[in-house]
Amino acid sequence: MSDENIDSYVVPGFLANGIHCGIKEDGRKDLALIFSEKPARAAAVFTTNRFKAAPVLLDMERIKRGQAQAILTNSGNANAANGPAGYNDALAMSRALSSKLDIRDDLVLVASTGVIGRRLPVQKIEAGMADLVAGLNADGIPTAEEAMMTTDKFPKMACRRGVCGSKEITVCGIAKGAGMIEPHMATLLTYVLTDAEVEGGTLSRVFRLAVDKTFNAVSVDGCMSTNDTAVILANGRAGNAVIKGRSRDLTRFRNLLMEVLADLSQAVVRDGEGTTKVIEIVVEEAKSIGDAKKVAYAIANSNLVKTAFFGGDPNWGRIIQAAGATGIPLPVDSVGIYFEGIPVFLNGQGVYGQEQTVAEVMKKTSIRLNVKLGMGGKMFRLHASDLSFEYVEINAHYTT
Amino acid sequence: MSDENIDSYVVPGFLANGIHCGIKEDGRKDLALIFSEKPARAAAVFTTNRFKAAPVLLDMERIKRGQAQAILTNSGNANAANGPAGYNDALAMSRALSSKLDIRDDLVLVASTGVIGRRLPVQKIEAGMADLVAGLNADGIPTAEEAMMTTDKFPKMACRRGVCGSKEITVCGIAKGAGMIEPHMATLLTYVLTDAEVEGGTLSRVFRLAVDKTFNAVSVDGCMSTNDTAVILANGRAGNAVIKGRSRDLTRFRNLLMEVLADLSQAVVRDGEGTTKVIEIVVEEAKSIGDAKKVAYAIANSNLVKTAFFGGDPNWGRIIQAAGATGIPLPVDSVGIYFEGIPVFLNGQGVYGQEQTVAEVMKKTSIRLNVKLGMGGKMFRLHASDLSFEYVEINAHYTT
Repeated sequence: MSDENIDSYVVPGFLANGIHCGIKEDGRKDLALIFSEKPARAAAVFTTNRFKAAPVLLDMERIKRGQAQAILTNSGNANAANGPAGYNDALAMSRALSSKLDIRDDLVLVASTGVIGRRLPVQKIEAGMADLVAGLNADGIPTAEEAMMTTDKFPKMACRRGVCGSKEITVCGIAKGAGMIEPHMATLLTYVLTDAEVEGGTLSRVFRLAVDKTFNAVSVDGCMSTNDTAVILANGRAGNAVIKGRSRDLTRFRNLLMEVLADLSQAVVRDGEGTTKVIEIVVEEAKSIGDAKKVAYAIANSNLVKTAFFGGDPNWGRIIQAAGATGIPLPVDSVGIYFEGIPVFLNGQGVYGQEQTVAEVMKKTSIRLNVKLGMGGKMFRLHASDLSFEYVEINAHYTT
Repeated sequence: MSDENIDSYVVPGFLANGIHCGIKEDGRKDLALIFSEKPARAAAVFTTNRFKAAPVLLDMERIKRGQAQAILTNSGNANAANGPAGYNDALAMSRALSSKLDIRDDLVLVASTGVIGRRLPVQKIEAGMADLVAGLNADGIPTAEEAMMTTDKFPKMACRRGVCGSKEITVCGIAKGAGMIEPHMATLLTYVLTDAEVEGGTLSRVFRLAVDKTFNAVSVDGCMSTNDTAVILANGRAGNAVIKGRSRDLTRFRNLLMEVLADLSQAVVRDGEGTTKVIEIVVEEAKSIGDAKKVAYAIANSNLVKTAFFGGDPNWGRIIQAAGATGIPLPVDSVGIYFEGIPVFLNGQGVYGQEQTVAEVMKKTSIRLNVKLGMGGKMFRLHASDLSFEYVEINAHYTT
């Protein structure tokens, strides 16, 4: 979460709210609404998992128009793996909102996060709709965030302001997700709201790119949810000249967006299941970005590397093991490994003499790991979590 | 380990021994020798990791001749990531043995397993050589196995006998490896000894195939050591007509070999770091073996699936998540998931009503998981371990 106080999470033209409608048994909030006073330009990125939850299937259709006015999210139930009945439930959830707001039904996006394989209690959502809509207000974004949370330990919000032409624009994002995936296989949800006026194709392109460099460059457990959804709504309320093409305004907007998404995605890793350390893995001197990415993910998803970081063990042997197993023809004598800039492996062998310093570095809660491949000039950066007892504890719990 | 008593681990023409030479500080045996009274036909399979340990690099050269007479193995030190000095140490280790045995140096294969990045204490190995060779005996195979162990909880040996023509042949194998990899990144080592007479090309081909279907179809943590080595020695002492081509004898020999390697590889999973359960993952109805393999490994290496099995949680949601993220265009409504034959997911949704039976099944220490893709007729079978607190505990320990 950003250091800014809660007042700053206001985006002109957007209202939000969150309530408890009865899906979560413990009384916590479980229904969130984000509403744009007028239809907004919209773009979205969804999970590429073949098993997509019902709300994802519905939203994928609706986003094609490039417009949306509301995002209705429930937590406590993922509405995934429920067959055709699940799709009808997603539709019913949408209709309950559109009829209450009196807007076109296809301007509603829906999202669900929680237990899978159980029918969504649509009646509870319908019963809560009047309160949810009645409570909509400009300060409601943090409340909506709260109602989206499942095993999240803290809310994840980020906001940036900048100038386009003579107009101030705001880009504000919220995210939920304790890892890419929570115990009962829920979801990473990210919503970005902006009052900037952005041309449709440009919005979609810049959002995809920013998600790719931020959310698609973190790894908690290498798993991909059936419900992952990232949406951006741009309502144009700032009155700026429409952002498009390759203007300077586009650069400004993209930078604000990147900062917001970087903040949120790193917060997701910090809040990852059982995370005690965040590892920034920077793979450099690769022949291609693809190679750099492959090595970075191999390291990030190696349980031996993850447990070593958890134990504060500067075990570079496990790092070369993971890199060496990728199938990339690494020049083994040119590979270099650095913890916070301190070399630990060079010229095909360990570098000794700085054990004390390295041991101190390994105690940090955020550690930079540089892996130089000696093959070219491309790089890829990834934020990953360690693997702790708590991860196993959280995930060994019974669903049934 | 097989149920047969220790006397059965005798292969005509082979001698073996194991001693403590001082590499391990706790006094356990750390130097193992297998010796064929005459040079044997030899074939081997090595790690495909780019970072290969010095003994692997040496053996890869030597195995090209298709002959070997001795395998010298030390535990407690992997002789990996030591640069050119490590290679010279591997050579020195070999020479110490060949001069003592008075055999050609290039008939010696060497292997090392233990901590990486530390120089091999060659003097200790040299000093122990006289005792090691003096103690060689026909009953020595279990002692050699003992001297190869690192974090292994139990010795892994398997032996089968059969008939080729009128001659009895023996195929006996030993393995070490608590997982594909032990805490300090050591190794899976497998040696198979047989007195059968097998033509060189045939031996190599049948061994590769058998390793592929056994050791290359288990997964403890998805990691690949720098030292993995599997060797077969065939000394021809049984006096059978040479096995080659596509004879009935070849089928018999291959079956014995497959049984020995299947026993050993499954023992390695059972003895995997922190393993409490072995999961037999059978992916069926795939379009290709490649697809089936991809899905099987995605499930086997998913920490969410592994922790669910540890917790006894029949969480099929995590299984479809892993399968769905592979990129294979699965027909989601045709995929079926079964625990020990009981369907839990069919027609795109969960199957309910047998929760009690499924809960009982999940308590077993060995569980069969069938995943039917509904795409074709190919299949792949994989043995995997779960992910427990103990795994994290073992692997979070300090190397330094």
